[in-house]
Amino acid sequence: MKEMLHHRVVEVQEALLSKNKAFSRQNRAVFDEAGCRVINLLSSPGAGKTTLLERTLADLAQRIRVAVIVGDLATDNDARRMGGYGAPVVQITTSDICHLDAAMVGKALEEIPRPLPQLLFIENVGNLVCPAAFDLGEHDRVALLSVTEGEDKPLKYPTVFRTANLVLLTKWDLAEPAGFDKEAALRNLSAAAPFATVLPVSARTGYGMDAWYEWLRERLKGEDVNGDAQQRSS
Amino acid sequence: MKEMLHHRVVEVQEALLSKNKAFSRQNRAVFDEAGCRVINLLSSPGAGKTTLLERTLADLAQRIRVAVIVGDLATDNDARRMGGYGAPVVQITTSDICHLDAAMVGKALEEIPRPLPQLLFIENVGNLVCPAAFDLGEHDRVALLSVTEGEDKPLKYPTVFRTANLVLLTKWDLAEPAGFDKEAALRNLSAAAPFATVLPVSARTGYGMDAWYEWLRERLKGEDVNGDAQQRSS
Repeated sequence: MKEMLHHRVVEVQEALLSKNKAFSRQNRAVFDEAGCRVINLLSSPGAGKTTLLERTLADLAQRIRVAVIVGDLATDNDARRMGGYGAPVVQITTSDICHLDAAMVGKALEEIPRPLPQLLFIENVGNLVCPAAFDLGEHDRVALLSVTEGEDKPLKYPTVFRTANLVLLTKWDLAEPAGFDKEAALRNLSAAAPFATVLPVSARTGYGMDAWYEWLRERLKGEDVNGDAQQRSS
Repeated sequence: MKEMLHHRVVEVQEALLSKNKAFSRQNRAVFDEAGCRVINLLSSPGAGKTTLLERTLADLAQRIRVAVIVGDLATDNDARRMGGYGAPVVQITTSDICHLDAAMVGKALEEIPRPLPQLLFIENVGNLVCPAAFDLGEHDRVALLSVTEGEDKPLKYPTVFRTANLVLLTKWDLAEPAGFDKEAALRNLSAAAPFATVLPVSARTGYGMDAWYEWLRERLKGEDVNGDAQQRSS
């Protein structure tokens, strides 16, 4: 009985991931056709995804065409926070679903005005586990680790960090009061995310934001970093 | 095809939760028979569950019999951190599973020396979504919200907070540098978790720890707060 249930769970998970793979391919084809670079942001709840994007929209939305798709279990708070910067923002409310999937993104994409923007951010549900398994059709994956979460998180939540092209160490202005051990964090990141670029940022003070924008500019040229996006899509 | 898969997902989820319910009843019967009070701790990754428990073990383990079951996707870091205080600590490594379930806890329970302790903490996987649906047989549910995560999290992750008897506002020493808005947080908590007690704590400075211990002492007398534990088990 227990074995049968386990077998059914595995079967349904495989069917879900296979269906997701098909939708992610469709999304990626649409993005590539439109020349739209897509960045999937993953982190714990409260690591600062929305604050980072607010500042990024304020700084970039006048210069490049950008849009945001944002996922949450409940509320449209984040979409409201990111409104008003001249960039389209579409909210996905997942109810009890702990991650975005490619079909949800495909549907939200219909609400983004054509032609598609040069840059599309997808702010995933705040969760360091479930979103990692779902390719949304993105070109790049950015994992945020706030300095208040502790240096050990890359080891404890390995998949999110292993599949990231870039790790942003957020809330850098709190590193000192939080007693953040940068050396330990970098050691853990080089074990868990050996191919990822690591940048410290503070969206509040502006520290490190230029390096983040420079990283984005390189992505807009269509360069792939360390091949992780391809590995995920293969 | 899509509808069929959706139907199968719902069916498997219901089977999983029903199986979990049976195991949680078994666990609760074992706990009640032994007079063991069980506290399930839920939060985002890095909200401070392990640090809180380390200090709690240091302060209480000489006076009352206490044990810990701790869940993580990977590593036994947390079990090692909580060792050395004279309390048994059992690590559950869930691999890619985003929450503990009652069967995992039942199995880990076999490694706790008999007679069972007066107080058993279960430190769940760091995740504000998935653990909420799984009753482990606990008597009380404690949600941790660190002041660095933002005041809006109770609204965005409603189930964890709605089913909690107690909400600990952790890392209270960082409230000021993080710009934490206590009034906004309490307003959101009273909407999302109207029956929960709310206590600010800092395991680093010791602020508020006495109120947390007082809350635990009341639980050890076997009093039920606000009936939530019963609601979950019914």
